[in-house]
Amino acid sequence: VEPHVSIVTLGVADVAAARRFYVEGLGWPTVYDAPEVVFIQVGHGLLLALWGVADLTADIGSGPLGGGPAPISLAHNVGSEQAVHDVLAAAERAGATIVKPAQRAVYGGLQGYFADPDGFRWEVAHNPGLRVGADGRVTLEAVES
Amino acid sequence: VEPHVSIVTLGVADVAAARRFYVEGLGWPTVYDAPEVVFIQVGHGLLLALWGVADLTADIGSGPLGGGPAPISLAHNVGSEQAVHDVLAAAERAGATIVKPAQRAVYGGLQGYFADPDGFRWEVAHNPGLRVGADGRVTLEAVES
Repeated sequence: VEPHVSIVTLGVADVAAARRFYVEGLGWPTVYDAPEVVFIQVGHGLLLALWGVADLTADIGSGPLGGGPAPISLAHNVGSEQAVHDVLAAAERAGATIVKPAQRAVYGGLQGYFADPDGFRWEVAHNPGLRVGADGRVTLEAVES
Repeated sequence: VEPHVSIVTLGVADVAAARRFYVEGLGWPTVYDAPEVVFIQVGHGLLLALWGVADLTADIGSGPLGGGPAPISLAHNVGSEQAVHDVLAAAERAGATIVKPAQRAVYGGLQGYFADPDGFRWEVAHNPGLRVGADGRVTLEAVES
């Protein structure tokens, strides 16, 4: 099986509220924008979908999904420590809750976390050991622990 | 804020078990492979991280994360309907549970879902309306509903 992710779908309580945060608040452009689902391009060949959790649950069709903050995080890596502060501030202005202010990360960079209106955790990070080549290949230096 | 996702981190019960599924079962190559965390390249500049849910929770530092299947899905889009069947079969052989066998999707393609050993839902889909350009830009035709 070829390793790839095409779409990360967040099951949200209110698509309009999620849209307000990501599209109006953060200014992220949509690829497809409808009342019931919004798709945003967040990488090379990668979409973020905002879809009502009931619709997502019905589409999967295997019973209820869990409540509470999902046991995942989406990392938004940036090129400098200043950018970590800037993105966290922009997220907060857009309606996010800062759940971990910017601080030293175990991997030697700077990190913080915000929660979107549904509680999904985003890490905003500057990790000098994570590099993306022109071909998209990622290298990661040893994680200090 | 520039729209991008660098890493999708799954908080898993047992990193070794998750590694067995993704690395040994599906054959996905690692970028960084340690007992406490495994990184797999799953897109252009995109990593999937398998990290113990306790470590992820501690890193976020904002209280417990939810239980039950996370209200998200990760879509693995493929180029043909046959590939949907093939990937679902490969996932099942690797230890996944098929939670929705391959069937017609509302968007006119074929889709199925499997759950990984931690219950994370992956959609395996052939969507003829989703196209990725050479520059990584995604276009999506109107979703029928």
